[in-house]
Order: sequence, then C-alpha cells, then structure tokens
Amino acid sequence: MTNALGIDVGGTKCLGVVVADDGRIVDETRRPTPRGDEPLIETLAEIVRVLGSSDEVGARVGIGLPGLITTAGVLRSSPNLPTVTELDLAGRLGTRVDREVLVINDATAAAFAEWQVGAAQGVSDLIMVTLGTGIGGGVVAGGQLIVGANGFTGEFGHMVVDPDGPPCPCGRRGCWERYASGSGLAQLARADAVGRRLPAVLERAGGDPALVRGEHVQSAARDGDPDALAVVDQFARWVALGLVNLTNAFDPRMFVLGGGLAEGADLYFGPIQRWFGELLYAPDLRPHPDLAFAVLGEHAGAIGCALLASGLVSDASQQN
Amino acid sequence: MTNALGIDVGGTKCLGVVVADDGRIVDETRRPTPRGDEPLIETLAEIVRVLGSSDEVGARVGIGLPGLITTAGVLRSSPNLPTVTELDLAGRLGTRVDREVLVINDATAAAFAEWQVGAAQGVSDLIMVTLGTGIGGGVVAGGQLIVGANGFTGEFGHMVVDPDGPPCPCGRRGCWERYASGSGLAQLARADAVGRRLPAVLERAGGDPALVRGEHVQSAARDGDPDALAVVDQFARWVALGLVNLTNAFDPRMFVLGGGLAEGADLYFGPIQRWFGELLYAPDLRPHPDLAFAVLGEHAGAIGCALLASGLVSDASQQN
Repeated sequence: MTNALGIDVGGTKCLGVVVADDGRIVDETRRPTPRGDEPLIETLAEIVRVLGSSDEVGARVGIGLPGLITTAGVLRSSPNLPTVTELDLAGRLGTRVDREVLVINDATAAAFAEWQVGAAQGVSDLIMVTLGTGIGGGVVAGGQLIVGANGFTGEFGHMVVDPDGPPCPCGRRGCWERYASGSGLAQLARADAVGRRLPAVLERAGGDPALVRGEHVQSAARDGDPDALAVVDQFARWVALGLVNLTNAFDPRMFVLGGGLAEGADLYFGPIQRWFGELLYAPDLRPHPDLAFAVLGEHAGAIGCALLASGLVSDASQQN
Repeated sequence: MTNALGIDVGGTKCLGVVVADDGRIVDETRRPTPRGDEPLIETLAEIVRVLGSSDEVGARVGIGLPGLITTAGVLRSSPNLPTVTELDLAGRLGTRVDREVLVINDATAAAFAEWQVGAAQGVSDLIMVTLGTGIGGGVVAGGQLIVGANGFTGEFGHMVVDPDGPPCPCGRRGCWERYASGSGLAQLARADAVGRRLPAVLERAGGDPALVRGEHVQSAARDGDPDALAVVDQFARWVALGLVNLTNAFDPRMFVLGGGLAEGADLYFGPIQRWFGELLYAPDLRPHPDLAFAVLGEHAGAIGCALLASGLVSDASQQN
C-alpha cells in the first residue's frame, strides 16, 4: 500500500497531509502561507520534504488552491495569494522536489474527498459547495469528477442572482457570494443592524454595526434571539436560492455543504432545507436532492489533493 | 451499417427521422402532436411502423420530449403535453411496437446531436442552450453526456436571475426564461412599447402593445430601427448573463445556441458576444468559450434521440 501526499494552500496556512488509500490521515504538518512566488514554492517544497521522506509515500504530490488553476497546473489567480499570478506551480515545484505535481482547485479537491471518503460516498451525482469568505464548489456528475474545459468548473460564487444587487469585487453586481457566504451573512446583518434593529447582535459587536460579523449573528441566534434568527432565515433563503439554481443545471443527488459555515450546520440546516423545498422547481415531480454537511472539515482539500495525486483518478482530473 | 430511428415530440408536431451512423437523415415523417396518453402512444407507434419497416433500421427507438423525463423513461410532466403526467412512455410504447424504447429530454438529445454530428464535433465540454418559448439545455462534460441523478440536467430556464423579477408559471420569480426566451423578448418589447416608445415595432403589431411578438422586434431591428435594436441589445444582455452563470458553473469550451431564436442568429450574435465578454467573471484570465449557433435546426432533437437509441452511447445516457 502506498500513501499519498496532499497540500491545501489556505489564506493563512498551508496544510499538508499524508493519507492512506481509505482517506485516513497518517501524518500532517502546517506552515504559514507566505507571500510571493518563491517563498510559496519553498514552503511547499519544505512540506514535501517533511512529509514525503518515507518510502511509503508515493512519488506524486497534489496541491490545492482556491481560484483559477489551469488543467496544466498553472495558477492564474488566487484570492489567497494576491501577489501571485501566472505561476507555473506544477512545473516549478515539480522541478524543485523532483516529483510529479498535480495542482487543482481546492473546492474541486474537497468535492473529490467528500465523494471518495466523506459525506457522499457512493453518490454518482453530487455538488460540493464551500461556503466560506466566498463560495467555491466542485462537481461529480455521472460518477466522474468534472473539471471543465480549463479546470475552472464550480466557480458558483460568481453566479449572478440579482443584476441590480450589491457590487462584487469581481466587477459585477449581485453575485451569489455577496449574499450566501460568510461575508454575505455579515452584510445582511449589518444592513439590519443599522438603526439598532438587532440589539443582541450589536451588543456582541461592541455596538458598532460596521463591526458585525457572522459569528455575532450565530452566537445571538444560538441564544434564541429572534432578530438574529430572522437574519439566519434570510441568509438561508439566499443559500437555498443558489442551490436551487444549481439543481436546475446539474440535477444532483446530493449537495455537500462545506467551508467555514459548515461549523454552524445545526443553525442553518433547518432553514436552508425549508427554503430549498419552497424554491425548488417542480418540487412535487422530483426526488429532492439530499442536503448534507461536509464531514472532512478543514482537511477535505488536502485529502482530495492527495487522493487525486495518488493516481487513482488521474484520468478524471486531467482529461482535457 | 444499421440506421437508427428517433422521434421528437414537439408542441405541434411529432418529427420522426431515420439517420445513418454519421447523422445523415435518410428518411423522415411528421404527424400532429395529439392530446392525451393513448393518442400519443398511437401516433408514436404509427411513426415507428412507417419509418421502421426496413431491415436496415435497428431495434431500438429514441423519443425526445421537453420537460422532466426520468432515466427510466417515465414522463413526469411536459409543457408540450399538458394533459399527460406520469406516463411510462418507454414501457407502454415499447410493448406496443415490440422494441426497446429510450425516452430522453429533447434538449439533452439535441445537445448530443450537435456534439456528435453538428456544431460541436470533437468538443469535450459544451453546453447547448435552446432558446424557444422557454429555455432548455443539455450538457456534455469531460467527453460525457451528463443527464443527472434523475435525468433532469439542463433545466436552465428556471435558474433565478432576479428574485424580485416577474412571476414565472413555475411559481417563482425572475427565472432566466422570463427574460432570455422568445417570450422574454416579447415581454421586454411590450414593456418598452407602452406609451408608443417603439413605433416601428408597434406598427408591425397593429398598434397594440399587448400584441407585440418577438418577430415584430426582429423585423424592425432588421430594418435598422434603433428602438428595436435597443430591445435586442437588452435581450442579448439577459441571454449573456445566463450564459456567464453557466460558464462559472460548468466551464464549457463552447455554447451551442439552438431553438427558435437561433433563426435570428445574425441579429443576436454580435450583441450576445459583446455582453458575454462584458459580464464574464475574470475575463482576462481565461479563454472565452466559443459561442456557436446550432446547425441541425429543428431536426437536432430527433437526430440525437436516434443516435442515443442506436446504442452508440447507451452507457452515457443511462448511467444512473
């Protein structure tokens, strides 16, 4: 049995794991995510040296990042690495560590991990949606990981759900992640907090509407504050609206919801499910997709990278 | 060489074709689409008798319809057959004609046809969007026809693009087909025609804004009327908005635009392409998908059904 090595490059830390065939983590390490091309390569090379010294670790390495990664492993742009563009990560890291390097979108990798060893085992058609600062995602359709013509499948956060909505840093208006991400939740709450309409939430934010964050809403909602629960409900409606749009497009058997907001699963699950049933097209004529929360947590991306790199599925990830 | 038999059940007519392996039509016939389960089965059986008598036609038949068709060939509901629900079309027609019957969504079949023998030959990742009275679609991803968990992939028309938009017969608001279909074009024009702001279009509709149809806009726009061209531009923006959303989700290499509006390709192509470039997420960091118009016209659905039924790709269409 050969173990596999995967590294997830997050906004603050790089998380490296060694996983067995069954997805079990047998070793792991973390390093702060540095700024700039060369420091990034050096940090990743060091993780490979630390984790990859054993003979039991295969020769290929998987690296996951958010953003636009081409199927050839070139990083076009990533929100986690604002100063890095057009980096041939697969080529440069591969030369440095003398291994074959597979670079893949982190949410695509997470979807693969949840499919192979997580919440969606045995499901042929599933969509993973990562609800964090922004929204990413990955798709399995017909029992195959879908990566798209360029490797960019699953950029769900920039689906426009209201052309007259608030501006998005991407330059357009009303992108789904303006509403249904962690920052979307905070924004909904801030709008409600102006005029002190959300006293329990405002108190947790020190009284300043501009400082309201998602955690404040979650905390007040967990204490049963009706105003905070109303914000959660409004948020859940936006989440469900996007999931419904994706259902029309892909017809999945299951959604796996991951990212930071999965930690509030207890709070969001009921309202999201209710709104989903309400907004679904032809709800009486179809089985509703299951809504599940991710089970691999922050490790999902790294595990998926390891499994993909181990070659089990190299054809699916590099088919184009 | 065996020929294949496919039938497309349209709103007014059933179109049956016999096609050779290369998609060439070698025989065809039409019948009016009847109302009710039994008359439909009888009409389809008659077409099979007429077209399928030759030994050169294979034993399987493909039937395409709009709406929700399960992978087992049960018609849940179809806009073209308002009185028919929960019809086991594959089973009942199969028994009647003593052949194996494959029933599939018409836009999925059209996508398959355009992929195999039409505008998108050799393209591994493509999306077909049929812009007619409503909007349907089909998806090929990673070189595989995608049908979804239930066979319902590609119901793009009910993607919500404005939750406060006009009501849709499906019970929700702001579905894409309220804006970007043939009826959407007419609706945009009617809104502009109130107060006689579209004189050249209104004249073609006999002076009554309520009677304005898409053809009136097309005709006036072809004569260079600037007001009509402005409506076309507004319409093209809505079409592009949906295509951009689908690009974020699927990352296709190509869009194939079909349906009735493909006949106005000369008029719409330029504006759709311009808006697409304007609205695309990260337009400088990715190759833009090609925009193409369907080349198989009204035959696309029937040809796709025939090719799918001929078994060339039975695994792709029935994988779930």
